[in-house]
Amino acid sequence: MLYLENGLMQEILVQKFGGTSVGDPERIRRVAERIKRYYEKGYRLVVVVSAMGHTTDELIALAGKVAKNPPKREMDMLLATGEQVSIALLAMALHEIGVPARSFTGGQVNILTDGNFSNARIESIDTSRLLAELDKGQVCIVAGFQGVDQEQNITTLGRGGSDTTAVALAAALKASECEIYTDVDGVYTTDPNKVEEARKLKQISYDEMLELASLGAGVLHNRSVEFAKKYGVTIHVRSSFNFNEGTKVVSEDMIMEKLTVTGVTLKSDDARMTVADIPDRPGIAAELFQALADKKINIDMIVQSTGKDRLNTISFTLPVAALPDARQAVESLIAKWGSGSISTDENIAIVSAVGVGMKSHTGVAASMFRALAEHNINIEMISTSEIKISCVIARERGREALRLIHSVFGLDKIH
Amino acid sequence: MLYLENGLMQEILVQKFGGTSVGDPERIRRVAERIKRYYEKGYRLVVVVSAMGHTTDELIALAGKVAKNPPKREMDMLLATGEQVSIALLAMALHEIGVPARSFTGGQVNILTDGNFSNARIESIDTSRLLAELDKGQVCIVAGFQGVDQEQNITTLGRGGSDTTAVALAAALKASECEIYTDVDGVYTTDPNKVEEARKLKQISYDEMLELASLGAGVLHNRSVEFAKKYGVTIHVRSSFNFNEGTKVVSEDMIMEKLTVTGVTLKSDDARMTVADIPDRPGIAAELFQALADKKINIDMIVQSTGKDRLNTISFTLPVAALPDARQAVESLIAKWGSGSISTDENIAIVSAVGVGMKSHTGVAASMFRALAEHNINIEMISTSEIKISCVIARERGREALRLIHSVFGLDKIH
Repeated sequence: MLYLENGLMQEILVQKFGGTSVGDPERIRRVAERIKRYYEKGYRLVVVVSAMGHTTDELIALAGKVAKNPPKREMDMLLATGEQVSIALLAMALHEIGVPARSFTGGQVNILTDGNFSNARIESIDTSRLLAELDKGQVCIVAGFQGVDQEQNITTLGRGGSDTTAVALAAALKASECEIYTDVDGVYTTDPNKVEEARKLKQISYDEMLELASLGAGVLHNRSVEFAKKYGVTIHVRSSFNFNEGTKVVSEDMIMEKLTVTGVTLKSDDARMTVADIPDRPGIAAELFQALADKKINIDMIVQSTGKDRLNTISFTLPVAALPDARQAVESLIAKWGSGSISTDENIAIVSAVGVGMKSHTGVAASMFRALAEHNINIEMISTSEIKISCVIARERGREALRLIHSVFGLDKIH
Repeated sequence: MLYLENGLMQEILVQKFGGTSVGDPERIRRVAERIKRYYEKGYRLVVVVSAMGHTTDELIALAGKVAKNPPKREMDMLLATGEQVSIALLAMALHEIGVPARSFTGGQVNILTDGNFSNARIESIDTSRLLAELDKGQVCIVAGFQGVDQEQNITTLGRGGSDTTAVALAAALKASECEIYTDVDGVYTTDPNKVEEARKLKQISYDEMLELASLGAGVLHNRSVEFAKKYGVTIHVRSSFNFNEGTKVVSEDMIMEKLTVTGVTLKSDDARMTVADIPDRPGIAAELFQALADKKINIDMIVQSTGKDRLNTISFTLPVAALPDARQAVESLIAKWGSGSISTDENIAIVSAVGVGMKSHTGVAASMFRALAEHNINIEMISTSEIKISCVIARERGREALRLIHSVFGLDKIH
């Protein structure tokens, strides 16, 4: 550790606390106590906080009472107040226990974004103000989720925005680490509620984290992980309820002992739709998935096979709740094409294995298929990427399959 | 009325709506409808709003749960969110009914203040952003009560701050008028709840307004009136519940027909304290009133008389609620001085007459004293300023005296 001439530790640590962690005055005081520990260790601290508890939802509801179609610029102006309340209260709580702290809105610390209200991208951060305050020994409390555009209009970063703020600040400040505090201990090999033998991972690569997030199992939003990957920021996912080491999200080459598979997941709220006997000509698939995208339906796996008579079959998985919308969209396409039929199956689950080790270890897919076969679990669809294998199976076998694959790849034995 | 080349009216109108006027979504929509009327008449509008209803009090209570002694900087950071919520919601409500509107925080429209958190003074306003937005045809909604200091820290202006924001903007923008919307129709010759014959004034001078405010009868905070006086801004006090003309607060020389007396007031929650037999030497009075000021006790009238034996008697009026504190402060002074005695009287009322016409009309005080004498109302203390006469009388005669003086000066006959 390096110390500056004035005795301050050179190392900057960014800590981010989510809405649950600052959900009420009592919790805010607890977060302040935690920050104090790090402050007393000599870290130069930049703390990012979200809006308290359900504040954002309440503000959205309030807007709904005033306008059906609120302009996004004004929505951002409104929502940004949620984080502003949190930062002020946290700074007060720190003062109260003798820690010098100052709160800053996104604009005050020059988090410059594009003008895409409600889903803005961070373009640059001028760290001069923060560094000056850190040099004065202040703990800097920064509002997550928000920035300003070139005209000083307030913008918000969309879902997972506070994580992105924290990672972006860590990158700009060259922080040693970006700690993201959540209500879980870290990233697990699988959902501990479903598999008792789930183990906490010490490390995971950005790409694995991204795959897990897209499978609904991530504790971090993809955008923040992409940002961290781009700038090489180490994210430390840990619990705000204890002082255990959590999981560090790092670049692949920083992981010495690569696991073949780091995580397995189970999704049980998807259905499969099969569109059969459709014309086999270029553009048909594009037309199909564009129609589904227009209805904002999230498609996960896609399998296409060409049958006899130049007719095609496309199967895909989608959230059960989206079935009616999807059926409507596909039916009008079939009417237009002049051929096609729809069948659906809600009785499915998707079990997936994720791991960067797959790149170098051959036979991972085979091991997974063999394990399922040995237990008479039929695989209905398969989809693979460089670091992920997903299988569609019958929903009632889902948990069994999850436990099985978790064990096959030895995830119950890591420590 | 002048029109610009682009057809926009050149005239800028500032309108300010208080917390009650924007207290809930329904009221915000009603304020939007009112603004639309003026927008359609062609005015270039700058609208200042306060925080909704009891928001500020709720935020203060929230801070109290986190810290006993919140730093003022963080308090301002917290409180400023109240107005930010209002401006966003009002801009949304305007969009919803087809009026182009944009909301702005104090900082965004460059309301620069000193760094005196919680009670900051406006130092300058750079109107370029507002003028540019007005030129685009936007209604500009500005957060009242707040600004930023030179380091972009958020500051608040203290009590009555939104009125001050409105008047300051009107001055900076050379607006034709600053309309302050309240829950009353305007400024009355006296309290209509106490005197049925009370009449609404068409005009009142800044100085009269200031005297009335210090008597607790003003609908405007003194600071905003002082600001308006300094920059010659016409304030139009009117109701947000109807479209009646209210009362214009203007400079004395704009009032053609000056009334001798424009307003009479009654205060019934003051007491009198008499401190007798105290040493008659320089500095005693200063010491006495400094001790009372240290306890933040608001003194209104003061009368001093020197008796025999070089001993002094000082009488003053103060809020009944402040009596215990005042007694404590004075008792320790008496102990120090070695002489003195305290007597108090809670059975008093203060009746006052205010009017710039007093400057030129002689005999106003005599008329007032004569009227009271003719009705056997005993005057216990008298205090006068250039445009005000106050008398202490027995509390049970208060309303009678108020009606009497209101009638003596013909205030029940103006229209």
